[in-house]
Amino acid sequence: MHIGLIGLGKMGGNMRTRMRNAGLTVVGYDRNPDLSDVDSLEALVEALPAPKVVWVMVPAGDPTRSTIAALKELLGEGDVVVDGGNSKYTDDAVNAASLAEKGIGFVDCGVSGGVWGLENGYALMYGGPADQAEKVMPAFEALKPGDSPDGIVHCGSTPGAGHFAKMVHNGIEYAMMQAYAEGWELLEKVDIVENVPDVFASWRTGTVVRSWLLDLLVEQLREDEHLDELRGYAEDSGEGRWTVEAAIENAVPMPAIAASLFARFVSRQDDDVAMKAVAAMRRGFGGHAVTRKDVPPTVSPPPPTDG
Amino acid sequence: MHIGLIGLGKMGGNMRTRMRNAGLTVVGYDRNPDLSDVDSLEALVEALPAPKVVWVMVPAGDPTRSTIAALKELLGEGDVVVDGGNSKYTDDAVNAASLAEKGIGFVDCGVSGGVWGLENGYALMYGGPADQAEKVMPAFEALKPGDSPDGIVHCGSTPGAGHFAKMVHNGIEYAMMQAYAEGWELLEKVDIVENVPDVFASWRTGTVVRSWLLDLLVEQLREDEHLDELRGYAEDSGEGRWTVEAAIENAVPMPAIAASLFARFVSRQDDDVAMKAVAAMRRGFGGHAVTRKDVPPTVSPPPPTDG
Amino acid sequence: MHIGLIGLGKMGGNMRTRMRNAGLTVVGYDRNPDLSDVDSLEALVEALPAPKVVWVMVPAGDPTRSTIAALKELLGEGDVVVDGGNSKYTDDAVNAASLAEKGIGFVDCGVSGGVWGLENGYALMYGGPADQAEKVMPAFEALKPGDSPDGIVHCGSTPGAGHFAKMVHNGIEYAMMQAYAEGWELLEKVDIVENVPDVFASWRTGTVVRSWLLDLLVEQLREDEHLDELRGYAEDSGEGRWTVEAAIENAVPMPAIAASLFARFVSRQDDDVAMKAVAAMRRGFGGHAVTRKDVPPTVSPPPPTDG
Amino acid sequence: MHIGLIGLGKMGGNMRTRMRNAGLTVVGYDRNPDLSDVDSLEALVEALPAPKVVWVMVPAGDPTRSTIAALKELLGEGDVVVDGGNSKYTDDAVNAASLAEKGIGFVDCGVSGGVWGLENGYALMYGGPADQAEKVMPAFEALKPGDSPDGIVHCGSTPGAGHFAKMVHNGIEYAMMQAYAEGWELLEKVDIVENVPDVFASWRTGTVVRSWLLDLLVEQLREDEHLDELRGYAEDSGEGRWTVEAAIENAVPMPAIAASLFARFVSRQDDDVAMKAVAAMRRGFGGHAVTRKDVPPTVSPPPPTDG
Repeated sequence: MHIGLIGLGKMGGNMRTRMRNAGLTVVGYDRNPDLSDVDSLEALVEALPAPKVVWVMVPAGDPTRSTIAALKELLGEGDVVVDGGNSKYTDDAVNAASLAEKGIGFVDCGVSGGVWGLENGYALMYGGPADQAEKVMPAFEALKPGDSPDGIVHCGSTPGAGHFAKMVHNGIEYAMMQAYAEGWELLEKVDIVENVPDVFASWRTGTVVRSWLLDLLVEQLREDEHLDELRGYAEDSGEGRWTVEAAIENAVPMPAIAASLFARFVSRQDDDVAMKAVAAMRRGFGGHAVTRKDVPPTVSPPPPTDG
Repeated sequence: MHIGLIGLGKMGGNMRTRMRNAGLTVVGYDRNPDLSDVDSLEALVEALPAPKVVWVMVPAGDPTRSTIAALKELLGEGDVVVDGGNSKYTDDAVNAASLAEKGIGFVDCGVSGGVWGLENGYALMYGGPADQAEKVMPAFEALKPGDSPDGIVHCGSTPGAGHFAKMVHNGIEYAMMQAYAEGWELLEKVDIVENVPDVFASWRTGTVVRSWLLDLLVEQLREDEHLDELRGYAEDSGEGRWTVEAAIENAVPMPAIAASLFARFVSRQDDDVAMKAVAAMRRGFGGHAVTRKDVPPTVSPPPPTDG
Repeated sequence: MHIGLIGLGKMGGNMRTRMRNAGLTVVGYDRNPDLSDVDSLEALVEALPAPKVVWVMVPAGDPTRSTIAALKELLGEGDVVVDGGNSKYTDDAVNAASLAEKGIGFVDCGVSGGVWGLENGYALMYGGPADQAEKVMPAFEALKPGDSPDGIVHCGSTPGAGHFAKMVHNGIEYAMMQAYAEGWELLEKVDIVENVPDVFASWRTGTVVRSWLLDLLVEQLREDEHLDELRGYAEDSGEGRWTVEAAIENAVPMPAIAASLFARFVSRQDDDVAMKAVAAMRRGFGGHAVTRKDVPPTVSPPPPTDG
Repeated sequence: MHIGLIGLGKMGGNMRTRMRNAGLTVVGYDRNPDLSDVDSLEALVEALPAPKVVWVMVPAGDPTRSTIAALKELLGEGDVVVDGGNSKYTDDAVNAASLAEKGIGFVDCGVSGGVWGLENGYALMYGGPADQAEKVMPAFEALKPGDSPDGIVHCGSTPGAGHFAKMVHNGIEYAMMQAYAEGWELLEKVDIVENVPDVFASWRTGTVVRSWLLDLLVEQLREDEHLDELRGYAEDSGEGRWTVEAAIENAVPMPAIAASLFARFVSRQDDDVAMKAVAAMRRGFGGHAVTRKDVPPTVSPPPPTDG
């Protein structure tokens, strides 16, 4: 199979390698000429036999939208575009409809696996009409984990079904990470448990909480017992937000995932904004030490009777 | 009425004044001789006519426990001790039982009102047998807000009923403060609302969210529009914790109050501890910028496909 | 001043009365002819002198959008439309731009006060250009609470500023209500506090948690001590959802308000959906009683060692 | 090795089998004579050679406390008691001190693995002095998963260290289960994803969320696609509560685990208690349909302007 691949960053670059290792002919394009096989999108499209299959692996939002818009000009009837990035599922219907105006098919595909995907394969959650997905199947087969019937799923025939499932996957992931993190903080804080990395390591076998994320955390704790080298700071990549937004739109309670998302937001604040308002009210009813910005909080006053 | 008052700090000092203004004879004792009317607990007790009523207004925990233990030695049959501090409700049964061994009565009393209490009166939530509380009534009458049938309540005949009600009051207060704080942060963050203090001020009349806490917040915002002078840092005085603990013991869901408590905990961390573990896992599955402690987080990488 | 008022339901009907009481000439239109002063929108517009001011007070979403679209056909240069309903703030920019095509002004106005507004006045949070708002000022003056400089605020010149502020007001309100509700549930659950309505009533004076919502809750508890007559079921009217969504878009942590929203969602489920999946996993690792749908949960098994 | 085992329920019975399969001589006692090897605790103790090792595997709280108290009478210098149940970590110090009065050693051990432990081995988290634990080692070796260096950990020399670690394990487990449950509910609710069990199944390979709990959930979904047979109802076994309580005592924010615990509490309520108070306040400010208990909530009124 011939396939075009746009975006050769950390994910895309490895995916190209994995597909080539599986015998596919991959033409890669990236804005960075050091990574790119061809000089332009035009050259990429030209290099492909019909029906042309082009996999887009660029950041969600404008980069993906503009890439797909450009492909619409270059591709034609019977070709297929795959959006393998982190697009919001609502973008997919728009892109699919736009491409359909020229008879170009569209498949959305959530991809999981990070830097481990090159070796272990990527989990794929795709959406769109089955006949379009069929054209991409050799690439799916090359990318998916080789040793399992799992790792790939057709989520639905509506464009966006794959990204929706991947979005929820990431939302779940946020709360799982938060769960381990909360437990870790408590174990770090108390004296009674003497070797926290050993406890986490022991959990990898036989327990209810064993998981791949646990394996990763244990490796990190083995290198840096108290994670002293790290800042307590976590970005979010959009899917967590969209998951909670989708929950709200559908009246689905989502307290743990939302809490995990908010914890990330707080971690990125230099000063805790909301707590300034709390501090202001506490100053208002009196008796409470309020720390001026330039004075480090030291000794607290004896507890007042109100909060 | 004669009454002894132990603890003449911010709360106790004002309460002495308010009781004296109401015509009571108050003998105050404080470890700080500058504040104290007498030299010792013994002198305080000696100065009171029988049945002696002693109001303890010192920090919860050991200070209150040791004060009550000392009073047990000094008082006798028919006397009454009032614990007006922030004691945990479970302490009250212990103290009541101990004092009862010598026939000394016990009343627990949650007191709200902060620095405003001197002028406006203190809200009082008391617990214990009605006949004991009766002996304290003139003090209650002096302390309570004068202009209302409210502001005072006998919560139950079991010792601790008053502190339990006060504890829940403070738990509710935490979530109310958090509610305003979250709304304030959002309004501060967006551009569309141009004058946030004016919006909060407008809410004082006619809206559903009007309250005394709102009044206090508006005053603070009038002095410091963006609360630039304050650190986003809030202590907690115990009752919030106990409220959530009591909820857990009773299988009562308490998501908003617990969230408010946790937000205070986070605000006091120099670095976000749990988020270090999240950052470690994100580093583990790769593609995510993890910020070493000594490097400020600046430009994020393009979003990876996993959270 | 002459003003047209569209939508004479619970809110609109009272607002018409309050404006008339203040001396304004109000022409009201409602789909329900029993409530309506005129037969049609056309008749309403015709009855107004230029510049015509029309206040729209119909449900948010399609009803408001279609009403404004109809007014666009009927009004002209210099006229003003006020959207006083619960529209999402993002709708306002769209409506303002559409009306501007014909030189029609637009003011958005969040209105608070419920059934009490007729007597006490309505709190008004409005947005849009000051010169447009100026044309509506007599109506604002009539509607606002009469006895206070507060209760009215110009939130910003961008359309939607008023609805944004009102939205946040409602979000705060959700968490305040949840705060009282959580405290009430705990007090109801324990034996130690003997008279819960009295405790809440006492809080109306002198405490930190005194508020209008507390006053309302006390009235309800006075009528129905344990709220036995009510189902634990609460709808949400959109603003709570939009507040959390706006927080997420702006990376503002909002744990207490979100928790309050989710609690409402859960209250509307006949069976707890997410908990079915938890029950399934517990059945999976065994030892846990899983309750088949048709069997009431009665005796639990002895606690197993995993969750 | 000879060992005594008290409590032969779902967990204890399988543990006896696994230890016997490993060549240990196990004397089991249970109140149920059908399960028991001996007639009484006395007979069990008598059957053991010195130093006697007795493993207690009965429900936490009073059953464990009274069993250990009885063993204190029967055992002597150099013997060891293991508490392998779900005891709260604070109980362990008390039990250890009591047994130490007679020179009896004590080891606490959290055990994970459920019904799968018989075949796969049990994960063991133990605490207490190393020399005491040494006496139990053959039993630990028999019970632990055989194929891994993990699955067993000495958490600390203080009694309770093992139960503390196990407690946190269960707390983490609660939030992981809640994470999957929230994601599942959202996927069930929307139409875009057509085959939810397939999506979960696909996640077992290559994704970030792969875990043993996921495997269990997939098996359950394979049997009952929409979990129609299950009630949305989940008990909790104590450790989740204690984890959050320990977090609160240590000022550790724990929003996701607490949210998961509260979700279980709510699932067990026939009517949503807190929401009755919310409904009462909404009735108070008017315009909101409040559902009388005997009337099913059907059509909502048009959204009012306040919450």
